[in-house]
Amino acid sequence: MHAPLSELASVTADILARLRVRAPRVHCITNSVAQAFTANTLLAAGAIPSMTLSADEIGGFVAGADALLINLGTFDAERREAAAAALEVAADEGMPWVLDPVFIDRSAPRAIYAKSLVAQKPRAIRLNRAEFTALADAEPDGGTLIHYALDTLAVIALTGEIDLVADGARHVSLENGHPLMARVTAMGCAASALTAAFLAVEVDPLTATAAALLAFGVAGEVAGARASGPGSLASGIIDALYALDHDTLVQTARVR
Amino acid sequence: MHAPLSELASVTADILARLRVRAPRVHCITNSVAQAFTANTLLAAGAIPSMTLSADEIGGFVAGADALLINLGTFDAERREAAAAALEVAADEGMPWVLDPVFIDRSAPRAIYAKSLVAQKPRAIRLNRAEFTALADAEPDGGTLIHYALDTLAVIALTGEIDLVADGARHVSLENGHPLMARVTAMGCAASALTAAFLAVEVDPLTATAAALLAFGVAGEVAGARASGPGSLASGIIDALYALDHDTLVQTARVR
Amino acid sequence: MHAPLSELASVTADILARLRVRAPRVHCITNSVAQAFTANTLLAAGAIPSMTLSADEIGGFVAGADALLINLGTFDAERREAAAAALEVAADEGMPWVLDPVFIDRSAPRAIYAKSLVAQKPRAIRLNRAEFTALADAEPDGGTLIHYALDTLAVIALTGEIDLVADGARHVSLENGHPLMARVTAMGCAASALTAAFLAVEVDPLTATAAALLAFGVAGEVAGARASGPGSLASGIIDALYALDHDTLVQTARVR
Repeated sequence: MHAPLSELASVTADILARLRVRAPRVHCITNSVAQAFTANTLLAAGAIPSMTLSADEIGGFVAGADALLINLGTFDAERREAAAAALEVAADEGMPWVLDPVFIDRSAPRAIYAKSLVAQKPRAIRLNRAEFTALADAEPDGGTLIHYALDTLAVIALTGEIDLVADGARHVSLENGHPLMARVTAMGCAASALTAAFLAVEVDPLTATAAALLAFGVAGEVAGARASGPGSLASGIIDALYALDHDTLVQTARVR
Repeated sequence: MHAPLSELASVTADILARLRVRAPRVHCITNSVAQAFTANTLLAAGAIPSMTLSADEIGGFVAGADALLINLGTFDAERREAAAAALEVAADEGMPWVLDPVFIDRSAPRAIYAKSLVAQKPRAIRLNRAEFTALADAEPDGGTLIHYALDTLAVIALTGEIDLVADGARHVSLENGHPLMARVTAMGCAASALTAAFLAVEVDPLTATAAALLAFGVAGEVAGARASGPGSLASGIIDALYALDHDTLVQTARVR
Repeated sequence: MHAPLSELASVTADILARLRVRAPRVHCITNSVAQAFTANTLLAAGAIPSMTLSADEIGGFVAGADALLINLGTFDAERREAAAAALEVAADEGMPWVLDPVFIDRSAPRAIYAKSLVAQKPRAIRLNRAEFTALADAEPDGGTLIHYALDTLAVIALTGEIDLVADGARHVSLENGHPLMARVTAMGCAASALTAAFLAVEVDPLTATAAALLAFGVAGEVAGARASGPGSLASGIIDALYALDHDTLVQTARVR
């Protein structure tokens, strides 16, 4: 692991400080189930979300943004058109974008579409094990992750009980989080949006992606310790992300 | 009332235990206002929600699901197409589905559409008094409920201060809940989704429907006792549903 | 300032009491990010929200409503059609409606569309500084607000750290609120919906608009004092609005 990752917790605090000062704009093409929680996650971290899908104006919104999220949780004609327009602008501007291929293991047409998006060079792809298998046609392990990262030139962020983040050369595992996070909708979607925000203020994609997931995992762990269930976790993780500081990150992070 | 209903509270605990182990998939065609709260209700109970509407892939999602919810809170061309495709698969698979005819008392075209869906044999219909009148062309009382249940072969679940659940032969009234529940959006929608989840793991439709509403009402009552208002009730009911156990159900249930 | 505004806090308590008794129906054409929070804000205040967009039935919903909100947070063909149909009914019925021109500073086509809606005589327009500049082609200050109010015959409600509300003759500034409100999505959208609800039960548009923003600001301030971050603020402001009473308003209001 390179030098920056060995001190990921304090690097994460630095990136978060930058994010709070610069307030990057993150345009999100995401599913309607996840929109409000995703917007609140970005606002809590210091970023400015926008979420319009209209073909007439998405180009302008993306041109004014600092990062882009494409989440496939709702796979409809409107969002596919929006994604095509948004990706054209993102490519022109060299803007980082994150792909979240939600539920592609449940839908063959969605998996095919996700593969076509991978060819348009996302800076990072965040997914779970079943989604990785559907996208990469391989069981996820350290080797297949690195192989797929090399193939796609994207950072691959596999989330679950332990998160694995890899580019073609480096990888890191993150062991923070809380079991209740799996009982709240849009947690993964929000983590992907946060990754886009981190990519807007940190040039190294692996560092940005790992830092975003670490911040989210630590916030979830802090909130989980206080929560009475998934309802209070959902608002608690927003509070914890807003309050997240260097000491909490360094003391709580479990990075390998 | 048949034997199982006389012990509805402990039967509900059993069904909930099954639900937590089997984690049934519930596909929801529902309005965008209710989506996040509905997904979080299902996750808190142990079910796995999916909510896509895309014509290209809804068939696959429903085929992989264990129950289906059709909620008319947003009545648009996209959702009508989605419902048609979903119901075709549900009929082929003999899958239970729940109809929630939101606000059909406010919109004549929506009421006509709801009646066409009733003809496609929902296992249960959850609605309020005004919606029952618009659907069944009769004022709701014990007699008209049973009559309508006989006509439609569906369990009719009329919710309000007291919930009434009837099939053509049996009926039960449930007196749990909390007044604040009427001040939070999507409570009825979430109760309908929970009914679909219960139908996925319990073969008797009346028992499944009554148990789902009992679980939701008891969770609401527990949360209402602790809440400072409708905002804390909304997250509290999710926490209470997640934590709901046999003793709380048996001690709190008011079933007649 | 006219007599009613000098006692805005107690007038606000009166309007809120009327709202809780009359339970006006407010139809909202709003973006999917804001829908659930907006519905919960209206319900907490005592109003009944509806949010359908379907061309087949929106006319019926608006005809049965007491006020209308048009929020441009999602600017798509479906919502533009819905707005056209809704405004026709609102004009026929002399129904008050509120325009919320979200993010028109980020999108030229959206600004052009917003200007076309202003010509259809909203009773109030709620916006932030950047949105005012895009709509009125002028920097916001006391003079330009009054000038624009005279031009449009609408009450102009400029929200920010201090809220300014003006019609062509009177203006008031409101200094309540909490910094965390800027970190939660849909706060402005919900304030606009609440303004529509207040317009349904109070004939003087300036009083109604100022009272709605005062109620929302005081609720936010009460919630902010108790919140651990933006997550708990979001549910806390709903609780505070539900519980808002005359004494809290009078003791907390900072009106000039």
